[in-house]
Amino acid sequence: MTSSDKIWTAGLVIIGDEILSGRTHDKNIAQIASWLQVQGIRLSEVRVVADVEDRIVEAVNALRAANDYLFTTGGIGPTHDDITVDAVSAALGVPVVVHPEARAILERYYADKPGGLTDARLRMARVPEGAELIPNRKTGAPGIRRGNVILMAGVPHITAGMLDALTGKLEGGAPLIAETIGCWIAESEVANLLREVEKAHENCQIGSYPFFREGKVGANFVIRSTRQEDLSSCVDSLTDGLATHGYDFTPGGI
Amino acid sequence: MTSSDKIWTAGLVIIGDEILSGRTHDKNIAQIASWLQVQGIRLSEVRVVADVEDRIVEAVNALRAANDYLFTTGGIGPTHDDITVDAVSAALGVPVVVHPEARAILERYYADKPGGLTDARLRMARVPEGAELIPNRKTGAPGIRRGNVILMAGVPHITAGMLDALTGKLEGGAPLIAETIGCWIAESEVANLLREVEKAHENCQIGSYPFFREGKVGANFVIRSTRQEDLSSCVDSLTDGLATHGYDFTPGGI
Repeated sequence: MTSSDKIWTAGLVIIGDEILSGRTHDKNIAQIASWLQVQGIRLSEVRVVADVEDRIVEAVNALRAANDYLFTTGGIGPTHDDITVDAVSAALGVPVVVHPEARAILERYYADKPGGLTDARLRMARVPEGAELIPNRKTGAPGIRRGNVILMAGVPHITAGMLDALTGKLEGGAPLIAETIGCWIAESEVANLLREVEKAHENCQIGSYPFFREGKVGANFVIRSTRQEDLSSCVDSLTDGLATHGYDFTPGGI
Repeated sequence: MTSSDKIWTAGLVIIGDEILSGRTHDKNIAQIASWLQVQGIRLSEVRVVADVEDRIVEAVNALRAANDYLFTTGGIGPTHDDITVDAVSAALGVPVVVHPEARAILERYYADKPGGLTDARLRMARVPEGAELIPNRKTGAPGIRRGNVILMAGVPHITAGMLDALTGKLEGGAPLIAETIGCWIAESEVANLLREVEKAHENCQIGSYPFFREGKVGANFVIRSTRQEDLSSCVDSLTDGLATHGYDFTPGGI
């Protein structure tokens, strides 16, 4: 494997009782996964854990040991249930410190707001020692990066702003590219074809995603590779095979 | 702790490259979490893993050791990337067998469909030895239950049907009940109040969920407990505190 073939991976820890209770529908997995693809980084595992320090520490340490990057979302606000900074600092074995720049940002942000910079709000300036800040234009309170560990907000549109600020700043590999072929057939009808085509193209994976719409069954077949040439060859084999079996298909998916 | 106070927990393993690539937005976490609440079972952790046997085995064994129940979604269809039954059987240390009733269901379901019961479709009759079936009225192919390990489809409306078939069949404890209080204020303004009220009510947790709507900040405070009396007392303390500080609030949340 040459250095350009290295597959860069990330783990994601989603911190929040509100996801585990079913109250809040997670939107960050898909948002972060899609963003990572563009950076040439593959999301390899996600864990959703409760607002309990030991659980966060365990998940953070397991996923950062296994991946190039570790992201968290949630638990960096001002309230008592926001314990991500404490837990991640414990996981990294470093103390929690107040970041002077974060403090200055919060002082400016709360200068004209009722109550000003309270102790609770000042919690949002706490970071694991050695961390730098990720700008947050929406609410002042920054995200946090310490090496390959990145702590982001849980509210999806704030997370989005932090991802935006990180765009192009993380080293990655060749982005995974994909093509989709849709068919109005049961995936089980072409299971053997899919298996054979994937086996014949070792740098490609084929995923099969069945659906039911307008009273009919169908499936999208997603071919993924880091190499355009291999991807095209695999797509050609699959569409040739579908045509040979007499199936109509829709390039780009249904 | 009396037996009626036992907290029953479940882990969930979501199996699917399509979630990790960002292509498909997960809907099963919220759906399963909400359903579990009603059964008196708490979702304690979720892991999203790739369609790779070792990853599935590791996640299944970690979460079933730590919880009363272990659920999986995804990977029980007819195609080459559907390896959940193999992986879970490996995790449980039992062989994969064809379940005669599942085979009969599939024979009936595919009798009048093009191709009939192909080898690929017959894959959906494979189960870990000792398993029973969970009916699926939508597509024939059943879910699978082996003791406290439950394998379900990944397509959300099929998952929903399987949950429906399981309703009332799993032992649980007292359901977690919740009340929500909404305020058009920044959560940071009442962070101390939330902390103090939670501390004074040991059988309750208070979660704070900020939002931005109509150009204004607000937050919903969700109070959870397994006991109605404790819950009501905690809600009273919080609303008294909000009133004392001069904040308007909306019972039921915003």
